Amino acid sequence: MAKEFVEKITSMDDDFAQWYTDIVTKAKLADYSSVRGSMIIHPYGYKIWENIRDELDRKIKQTGHENVYMPLLIPESLLQKEKDHIAGFAPEVAWVTHGGEEELQERLCIRPTSEVLFGEYYKNVIHSYRDLPKLYNQWSNVVRWEKTTRPFLRTLEFLWQEGHTCHETEEEAVEETEKMLNVYASLCEDLLAIPVIKGKKTEKEKFAGATFTYTVESLMHDGKALQTATSHFLGDGFAKAFGIEFLNRDGNLQTVQQTSWGFTTRIIGAMIMVHSDNRGLVLPPKAAPTQVMIVPIASHKEGVLDHAYEIKNSLKDSVRVEIDASDKKPGWKFNEYEMQGVPLRLEVGPRDIEKEQVMFVRRDTGEKRQVSVHDLKSEVEKLLADIHDELYKKASLYLKEKTLIAFTLADMENFLREDNYLIQAMWCGNKDCENEIKEKTGATSRCIPFEQESIAETCVCCGKQAEDMVYWAKAY
Amino acid sequence: MAKEFVEKITSMDDDFAQWYTDIVTKAKLADYSSVRGSMIIHPYGYKIWENIRDELDRKIKQTGHENVYMPLLIPESLLQKEKDHIAGFAPEVAWVTHGGEEELQERLCIRPTSEVLFGEYYKNVIHSYRDLPKLYNQWSNVVRWEKTTRPFLRTLEFLWQEGHTCHETEEEAVEETEKMLNVYASLCEDLLAIPVIKGKKTEKEKFAGATFTYTVESLMHDGKALQTATSHFLGDGFAKAFGIEFLNRDGNLQTVQQTSWGFTTRIIGAMIMVHSDNRGLVLPPKAAPTQVMIVPIASHKEGVLDHAYEIKNSLKDSVRVEIDASDKKPGWKFNEYEMQGVPLRLEVGPRDIEKEQVMFVRRDTGEKRQVSVHDLKSEVEKLLADIHDELYKKASLYLKEKTLIAFTLADMENFLREDNYLIQAMWCGNKDCENEIKEKTGATSRCIPFEQESIAETCVCCGKQAEDMVYWAKAY
Ligand SMILES: [Zn+2]
Ligand SMILES: [Zn+2]
Repeated sequence: MAKEFVEKITSMDDDFAQWYTDIVTKAKLADYSSVRGSMIIHPYGYKIWENIRDELDRKIKQTGHENVYMPLLIPESLLQKEKDHIAGFAPEVAWVTHGGEEELQERLCIRPTSEVLFGEYYKNVIHSYRDLPKLYNQWSNVVRWEKTTRPFLRTLEFLWQEGHTCHETEEEAVEETEKMLNVYASLCEDLLAIPVIKGKKTEKEKFAGATFTYTVESLMHDGKALQTATSHFLGDGFAKAFGIEFLNRDGNLQTVQQTSWGFTTRIIGAMIMVHSDNRGLVLPPKAAPTQVMIVPIASHKEGVLDHAYEIKNSLKDSVRVEIDASDKKPGWKFNEYEMQGVPLRLEVGPRDIEKEQVMFVRRDTGEKRQVSVHDLKSEVEKLLADIHDELYKKASLYLKEKTLIAFTLADMENFLREDNYLIQAMWCGNKDCENEIKEKTGATSRCIPFEQESIAETCVCCGKQAEDMVYWAKAY
Repeated sequence: MAKEFVEKITSMDDDFAQWYTDIVTKAKLADYSSVRGSMIIHPYGYKIWENIRDELDRKIKQTGHENVYMPLLIPESLLQKEKDHIAGFAPEVAWVTHGGEEELQERLCIRPTSEVLFGEYYKNVIHSYRDLPKLYNQWSNVVRWEKTTRPFLRTLEFLWQEGHTCHETEEEAVEETEKMLNVYASLCEDLLAIPVIKGKKTEKEKFAGATFTYTVESLMHDGKALQTATSHFLGDGFAKAFGIEFLNRDGNLQTVQQTSWGFTTRIIGAMIMVHSDNRGLVLPPKAAPTQVMIVPIASHKEGVLDHAYEIKNSLKDSVRVEIDASDKKPGWKFNEYEMQGVPLRLEVGPRDIEKEQVMFVRRDTGEKRQVSVHDLKSEVEKLLADIHDELYKKASLYLKEKTLIAFTLADMENFLREDNYLIQAMWCGNKDCENEIKEKTGATSRCIPFEQESIAETCVCCGKQAEDMVYWAKAY
């Protein structure tokens, strides 16, 4: 039975992309729809998103932000107001040209992001330094006309939050940019057990219209990097384009300083590719819809089901616990909840009742052990915390093992020819070198990390004086 | 000062539409955007929506439903599968014709509702009676190309939830349709203090593609009715169009029976037009972002601010309480929070500290009274509950007063010539009479109420044998 089930998943060593798709569909997270590049998020996948969203929403509000809602559609003339922005997004927006039977006088695009809508709004509502800062956030869907798509990782439409703020000074806005990057980093690490590297994007990789972009990057099981979230310091670029001015404390007109930052359903793809294995999904406990699944053994025997429900009741105030009392075989259930990545399984059988104990099985390590029902509540809490820590430790170790130092372009080419790695290498700051590295190795600059190490004096590509240590990798 | 502020709102007796718009903008709920018919929901308006949404989401989950997410875009061919549905929605959908620089081979519409997406999905995932019922819900934005729009009431884009369920039997599906109508009704009454009339729509007014539509209707301050939420029994119309079949308990192929039901941001418009007055918004306490606003009086005097914060702390675990410690004048604050509809204001001044008391002012009745700080917590809870009850009672009384019985079409014409009323009148069931009534009086059939009263034997319009008592009104 076990074998039968496991056979259905492609091994990640054979075909990583297929392994990923298998997990997405077989763990019932999402599915393809008849709309190219758009996905259907199943209840199980959506519950994970709700857990992530609720925790992030709490953090966003805790840091003083308020939620608002802006329109889905953007008039073409509005999108064109900031030149770098439209240049970046024009190739990937969807255009509405007809409303009902009528052709529109001006095309409307479906928002790919909402800087211009917030820009126009802020121009109308900000007049004095007393109106600042404005700390707004929006939960919404956006559309980007991607050519190649994969569930969660890159979809035509995705769900996200986008923060948009206005400040009196550059200093304050930069501080906000950092603060929100740290919120994202702690969400990845504390909720999802995903270790991240914090840093700054290069000019080439920054957001269209930003002064600079901060990013949190993480490393997937196949050695490719994934940009997990970004936080942009917009400077006064959008503010000047939209005329967002205020009377400052000295009574003079001044342009605001802005930030924007976003976190998307893409994170679910990252979570899969960081933690899961060849038996299916592995969920970090804090994001898991069901943290503990109770499987009754020989449930037709007297007392077993009652005992299982008692155990559920004793746990339900402290963890998200379910019981599968269906008539399916225990073996089927074991496989199913391993596939679904439920962090902890409790088995309750006739002999366990006598001995006043329960068998637990950890999804991450497979560890199996008896525990007294009297210690169960504290033991389960401890185990879930431990699973989180172990997942984080394992992923951190993997990140460390897969990080290589390159001194020359030849090093990088060698490293990346047959496999994927995260590469640390020095860079002169010139875009030509960035382009050459990409061309020769397939790797892009992931970030200039805040934690710098001086590996060498010279650029890995051109040999000239280096400015920064940069992380490079093939990326999603 | 008070006068100055109040002057800014148009009286509802002078111009009801302008009064409504004034409240929406001056209470900072929403604003117009540069996108025709789309609104910007401000933080204050969005917090109200969050309170409503969270409570409805809780009820939807409590009744066994799970959240999912379907695509925003629908291929034209998919929308056309159910003929009544496309006929109803074709005139009001927005069409995407270009993705990036490319013209699409098939147009995509922005979902006006998602029956067809769920239809296609259910066809793929339902195979056996064991897969039923399917009880799914989605929180999303939809677009309908309305010609005339007003914030919350009728907008190009709105936020909502849409439930979509599949069942083995007609009986079960009809029961679900009723259950969800009752969820909506109790949300209106218990959370928003809005009395509703539950009933069935006529054939003419039902949802495009449904077998029948249940509705909750409520009456606005101007005597017009508003359809607050609807729940549709879809029968097997969509299921046949999409081929949603399952092996039933007898081993035969059978078509599923479906429902759909929705609740939108429109409810905020209803809430305004049922409770508010000429001094601004009046919020039902359970939906209010701030339930209690503390205004310190002579806050420069020793101890006042400390005392105000102490009071806030003593209340903050049981109610949503804020304090306005800004340097604005108390009079300005009084007006502002009346405008914003905060249910209860507490005034804390130097003399109150000595006497260990606080002054409260109710937003709904204007009642002003001293209360001992020692009784404050229980008194505040009691007052908020009382405000809810009073709002509900007042609205119910108004509904009763504005309901008239008509025996002839001439009655209806007379009643509705100069003013708006909810009219009870008998109807034969013929669409021609419905059309004639609309033509002569401007009123549409709101619903055939579940609670029937036999007013007369004959139809108010044609004089033939009557089938049902129907509520008629001009409507939003
Ligand atoms: Zn170089
Ligand atoms: Zn008639």
